[in-house]
Amino acid sequence: MSIFEELESEVRSYSRGWPVVFDRAVGSRIYDENGNAYLDFFAGAGALNYGHNNPQLKQALLDYLARDGVTHALDMFTVAKRDLLETLQEKILAPRDLDYKVIFPGPGGANAVEAALKLARKVTGKESVINFTNAFHGMTLGALSVTGNSMKRSGAGIPLVHATPMPYDKYFDGVYPDFLYFERLLEDAGSGLNEPAAVIVETVQGEGGINAARVDWLRGLADLCHRHGILLIVDDVQMGCGRTGPFFSFEEAGIVPDIVCLSKSIGGYGLPLALTLIKPELDVWEPGEHNGTFRGINPAFVTASEALRVYWSDDELEKSTRAKGERFGAALDGIAKGYPDAELTAKGRGLARGLEFTSGALAGRVCAAAFERGLLMETSGPDGEVMKLLPPLTLTDAEVDEGLAIIEESVKSVLAK
Amino acid sequence: MSIFEELESEVRSYSRGWPVVFDRAVGSRIYDENGNAYLDFFAGAGALNYGHNNPQLKQALLDYLARDGVTHALDMFTVAKRDLLETLQEKILAPRDLDYKVIFPGPGGANAVEAALKLARKVTGKESVINFTNAFHGMTLGALSVTGNSMKRSGAGIPLVHATPMPYDKYFDGVYPDFLYFERLLEDAGSGLNEPAAVIVETVQGEGGINAARVDWLRGLADLCHRHGILLIVDDVQMGCGRTGPFFSFEEAGIVPDIVCLSKSIGGYGLPLALTLIKPELDVWEPGEHNGTFRGINPAFVTASEALRVYWSDDELEKSTRAKGERFGAALDGIAKGYPDAELTAKGRGLARGLEFTSGALAGRVCAAAFERGLLMETSGPDGEVMKLLPPLTLTDAEVDEGLAIIEESVKSVLAK
Amino acid sequence: MSIFEELESEVRSYSRGWPVVFDRAVGSRIYDENGNAYLDFFAGAGALNYGHNNPQLKQALLDYLARDGVTHALDMFTVAKRDLLETLQEKILAPRDLDYKVIFPGPGGANAVEAALKLARKVTGKESVINFTNAFHGMTLGALSVTGNSMKRSGAGIPLVHATPMPYDKYFDGVYPDFLYFERLLEDAGSGLNEPAAVIVETVQGEGGINAARVDWLRGLADLCHRHGILLIVDDVQMGCGRTGPFFSFEEAGIVPDIVCLSKSIGGYGLPLALTLIKPELDVWEPGEHNGTFRGINPAFVTASEALRVYWSDDELEKSTRAKGERFGAALDGIAKGYPDAELTAKGRGLARGLEFTSGALAGRVCAAAFERGLLMETSGPDGEVMKLLPPLTLTDAEVDEGLAIIEESVKSVLAK
Amino acid sequence: MSIFEELESEVRSYSRGWPVVFDRAVGSRIYDENGNAYLDFFAGAGALNYGHNNPQLKQALLDYLARDGVTHALDMFTVAKRDLLETLQEKILAPRDLDYKVIFPGPGGANAVEAALKLARKVTGKESVINFTNAFHGMTLGALSVTGNSMKRSGAGIPLVHATPMPYDKYFDGVYPDFLYFERLLEDAGSGLNEPAAVIVETVQGEGGINAARVDWLRGLADLCHRHGILLIVDDVQMGCGRTGPFFSFEEAGIVPDIVCLSKSIGGYGLPLALTLIKPELDVWEPGEHNGTFRGINPAFVTASEALRVYWSDDELEKSTRAKGERFGAALDGIAKGYPDAELTAKGRGLARGLEFTSGALAGRVCAAAFERGLLMETSGPDGEVMKLLPPLTLTDAEVDEGLAIIEESVKSVLAK
Repeated sequence: MSIFEELESEVRSYSRGWPVVFDRAVGSRIYDENGNAYLDFFAGAGALNYGHNNPQLKQALLDYLARDGVTHALDMFTVAKRDLLETLQEKILAPRDLDYKVIFPGPGGANAVEAALKLARKVTGKESVINFTNAFHGMTLGALSVTGNSMKRSGAGIPLVHATPMPYDKYFDGVYPDFLYFERLLEDAGSGLNEPAAVIVETVQGEGGINAARVDWLRGLADLCHRHGILLIVDDVQMGCGRTGPFFSFEEAGIVPDIVCLSKSIGGYGLPLALTLIKPELDVWEPGEHNGTFRGINPAFVTASEALRVYWSDDELEKSTRAKGERFGAALDGIAKGYPDAELTAKGRGLARGLEFTSGALAGRVCAAAFERGLLMETSGPDGEVMKLLPPLTLTDAEVDEGLAIIEESVKSVLAK
Repeated sequence: MSIFEELESEVRSYSRGWPVVFDRAVGSRIYDENGNAYLDFFAGAGALNYGHNNPQLKQALLDYLARDGVTHALDMFTVAKRDLLETLQEKILAPRDLDYKVIFPGPGGANAVEAALKLARKVTGKESVINFTNAFHGMTLGALSVTGNSMKRSGAGIPLVHATPMPYDKYFDGVYPDFLYFERLLEDAGSGLNEPAAVIVETVQGEGGINAARVDWLRGLADLCHRHGILLIVDDVQMGCGRTGPFFSFEEAGIVPDIVCLSKSIGGYGLPLALTLIKPELDVWEPGEHNGTFRGINPAFVTASEALRVYWSDDELEKSTRAKGERFGAALDGIAKGYPDAELTAKGRGLARGLEFTSGALAGRVCAAAFERGLLMETSGPDGEVMKLLPPLTLTDAEVDEGLAIIEESVKSVLAK
Repeated sequence: MSIFEELESEVRSYSRGWPVVFDRAVGSRIYDENGNAYLDFFAGAGALNYGHNNPQLKQALLDYLARDGVTHALDMFTVAKRDLLETLQEKILAPRDLDYKVIFPGPGGANAVEAALKLARKVTGKESVINFTNAFHGMTLGALSVTGNSMKRSGAGIPLVHATPMPYDKYFDGVYPDFLYFERLLEDAGSGLNEPAAVIVETVQGEGGINAARVDWLRGLADLCHRHGILLIVDDVQMGCGRTGPFFSFEEAGIVPDIVCLSKSIGGYGLPLALTLIKPELDVWEPGEHNGTFRGINPAFVTASEALRVYWSDDELEKSTRAKGERFGAALDGIAKGYPDAELTAKGRGLARGLEFTSGALAGRVCAAAFERGLLMETSGPDGEVMKLLPPLTLTDAEVDEGLAIIEESVKSVLAK
Repeated sequence: MSIFEELESEVRSYSRGWPVVFDRAVGSRIYDENGNAYLDFFAGAGALNYGHNNPQLKQALLDYLARDGVTHALDMFTVAKRDLLETLQEKILAPRDLDYKVIFPGPGGANAVEAALKLARKVTGKESVINFTNAFHGMTLGALSVTGNSMKRSGAGIPLVHATPMPYDKYFDGVYPDFLYFERLLEDAGSGLNEPAAVIVETVQGEGGINAARVDWLRGLADLCHRHGILLIVDDVQMGCGRTGPFFSFEEAGIVPDIVCLSKSIGGYGLPLALTLIKPELDVWEPGEHNGTFRGINPAFVTASEALRVYWSDDELEKSTRAKGERFGAALDGIAKGYPDAELTAKGRGLARGLEFTSGALAGRVCAAAFERGLLMETSGPDGEVMKLLPPLTLTDAEVDEGLAIIEESVKSVLAK
């Protein structure tokens, strides 16, 4: 492992918890160079909703590469891009009656967020953006400004301004009315709150600790934005592409955001791709006013289109995600109830699930115990206090069982001590 | 083409100059869906230094995908990543006596720049950065702050601060001493210049109009930074990976930047990859203080490693790039001399070449004429007044001839009118 | 009046509500050029706590001017300044056991606030400041950033950053626990709140609508600041110098702020003077790091010293202020109760009193009616909905009666319609 | 002196160089408490152009106070204010054909600058302001942002943004064309310079080291601003009111700024007063959008009006200032020539004069030697290397002789060592 220690920056992180060298992966399994298999309930932090090296997508990718399909094309028109746009329209937008235009903002989720923020500010002429406690939107300067984690914020080296955090759903355990403070500040001409261009929100906060907003809260937020002329940006980078069940995580709430950020699993195969969907009336940019080199990675277009065709032509995946999600939810609840003194809380929606411990140390020890037993999970939350489950949506029922068994054992091994 | 017009944002740009649908590509050629071939002197804006779908890289990629090598791995240790680090060390860093640590900052060049700026600010405790007139560093908020183009800056929707532009080399046609203003401001305790954390510079400004800084100027800049305790960041995203001849564009000047940004062609095949190289003493980040989903695209690691092995085990490519660069330079000079009234200027270094016209309209018409003749070139410069040539470094001598012939014809067709 | 309309900027404001030309003034009375007398319950927006041209202060001033005492002295040592420092120490600081050093920050309250913010940021190395809803701290850029009024904020012409507003006491009518949101954000490492250098607060918000914080709330705030290592700045520019009874408005709460801003009535006679009091350990500035031309207006030092001697050698003024304040409070309550349908609310503490109407239009009409009857009062609050009483502390009981009679009539004349 | 050391902040500055306690002052003389007289060539840093306690102004002031003229009136109409506006119009604006409206921005020069910057930004919708190397505009946050001195800037505790410094006249000793860099940046769409709302400039930089811009340079600047649609703000706080000869320091250049800042000597007697003069078309503020407590200090109005009447009804003062200024200039030149090895430079215009030494230490020792001999002068310039003379404009010829004799001796005592 010496070359990593010698050459790679100390900023590396996941390799510290999982100090093995991975080599191959298929579906829900990833293998280290010694052939040890790990059940992957981390799934590329949500970038591998269809599993590692999904065979159907793989075939489409190999065919495309083999026939010398264009690989890199910036924002030129390509056959692969046309296919992606048509498939997106046919499989996703049209059936949901969504009238969005598509920006290719750059390769990653932070690019989708940066483009969203830039556009919202340009359209409204306002600089300020409302974000939420424990939000995570990315590490580039614009995205970092609306991210909550103080350690990550301190990495900026400059004061992060133009964003004001508001309490996310259930921040006060549901005791106070939703949007109490936010709406009061908006309505009070003396509040000192800069008028916001936009609100940016995740429907379920993944990095923030698997905090799932209630659909009523989301509806209330959309309504508040509408009443005050504030653009609503849903960052669906981690929770979109079926993670919570439906393709878009906000569908359940019946809301239509002004701007939607997609990335991670939108490429299907783990190759970088990001989209920013915007209502047509927001499409005010000059040609080239936002650009970037990696906006046209055609192999990712190919796997993205294929993923939409394979998984979103019917509602099988959505149903399966809900069902498995409920199994996870029930099992985690059961674990929580089994250790009443430990004050565990099961959290989440769909296949974004978490088990909250009273400290980051405990959650970390449970994840370490799981790793020893061949299961990959990371922690999340402001203090790393939540054991986070983001398995591939394509995992089998047997893999659910296997994973839950390891989790039970791991929790027991830590809490029984 | 209707789905593009219907669904894609108006921000799209290259598709306006080249209104065809591309499909396949090999080496220096790209083909539209009707089978028309185009000689590509654009090369993914510098992301395709080894040509489209380079056969050797393609084979390595197909093999890796076929054997289910891990595709997406964040910053976990992988066999493919180890190979990249070892190959980078062996083929690039060690032979040049460069002692850098490697950050995987995210998928694109803007991520490499954002990480560089964040780190420079964190290390120094200062916010301000010096950039140069007509710089281009990317579209995310931090990178955009140090980018010169006013149209792109206006896309931010917020005032871009913490950066002060200084005149790039030859900004005043060489009449005034280098760094006259910059150094005076630094030395004057009353100048009002915020003390800079870092200087960020391109050795040749691609988007800025193929402005090639003299090596003396670069040496002077490195010396100034050293004397004043300012970190020197070279953004080698477009000019690195051999574009000007040597692997790093700053080698010719004999300088060693504190931080180097790489992307575009570092992945070899056009897949997103970016690296930020830093001097070891700057490696002060906490684990995870900068992160991101697409930092471990292993297929790109595979093609990156293979590209280093194939093209950087000896100095063949470097020599060839210099030689072809000189051919282009001489030919463009000849064209310029052939139209004395048109006040054309040949510019550039290595295989980053330009022909400057007196207006963006003229340069645009020449590029359009070239497109009609089967040659892809874009314009650059603040008013788009520079016809920009970034052919694959692997183009053949015959392709040089072919391209130059088209260019001559295209210039003639426009200027003769 | 034509020269005013011809030459003075449209930004003028008080002259619109009181369109007469004032000439002379003594005590609680101000006279226009036609000899009409007005009872002044505005008192220079709190700058005339001891009445207009207070005879004792006037004599000291005339004597000083007559003997050619230094008028303007920047921060040179002067006899008059020594007297002020000694008197401040003897009459104010020592009896209250307050250990403060004194900054002469410039002539006005905004200077006191700017100095406080600069110092708090310098000492802590943090940029962010917490202010409160409906705060008013001044019109210079630093002070304006922590001011709530949106109309005034929009005058800045740049985004006002580095401040986050928190709910002032009773912002939600006392239904929710104090500091609920503030403390939660501070304790949550993922909240996205930039760590604050300081909290700046008024104990009674004058411009904000005569909102008097409860002493328990103030104690809770001081405690919160202490626990979190946040500097507490009390802006006592309007509420200090006895306006609420004791010399400092925070005395009743038994708290000791880290920094106190004084201006308005500290000069005694209406001449510009401001002080920033700081705990000795905060005195980290370099000589001259903060300066300004009008920091040593010695005639104001003379009247300031005399005012401290005359009014703060015993507790007569404090007692009188409390007693008269209670009379006003009771009378305003009575008026409110007399118009149950009008939903009036009596507000305030000491001789900072208000009557809140349901709209700014109503409050404005009452103040206009009072002006017609010879009484000056302004409105305050975000929508101007509060009739604001800031009479000289030295008003007589007969003047209290007279003023209250006019107020009753004026309210009646408006509400009876 | 113990109460000063005990109670006053370490930020005090002038008292360190002149460690005596001043008491009385008349004309060009100031006396300490022991009756020692000092010839004052500092004159309140330019606030006492008409000398200390000028008898004519004093009489007007005493009369006004004695008759209980209104002292403090915010922006209400008063007889004294009407007189000031009428006198300003009659004596200053009308004779010079200047069509300005008047803002009363607050008590001091920084307020005049803050109001100017706010208005320029509001009118243009742009945030950025161009300032000049070694500018001094004040200590409040907006004014400090456009001030050059790095020690004072560091007092802000936050990054000072929205300002870009350009080289002042002769910054490169006149070798390079004026505005070379500035104009090039403005014309280059890729320069990275944020489009400026305004330029703020002093015609002679007092704090910056008595740098007198040539009238050609000022004309060039006005022309550049005009051509590029940039508002020109002249900060005449220190150089206005006759300091360089004419009432406005820019008259000699024949330019008409869009905005003019006045303070210091505009009040005549050393009492705080400031004015911001604006072209009528810029008067776009809402009533009350900029306000402040000390905008209506009527005693200062009285002395201001009287000063205009006494000194600006004819051109006697202007002529005298020029003549005495030339005497000072010639004498300082003579001194400089007398010490060829010391590389002294005489600087300035009118009665703003300086003698530049090769170090701040030398200039400081000369000023200390002068203080021992009964003459007050301060140093200025980024390193305090300029001995600065700002005598009252009303000094007598005998006082010129006396002061010059002390200066000669003091220089000799230091340089002869």
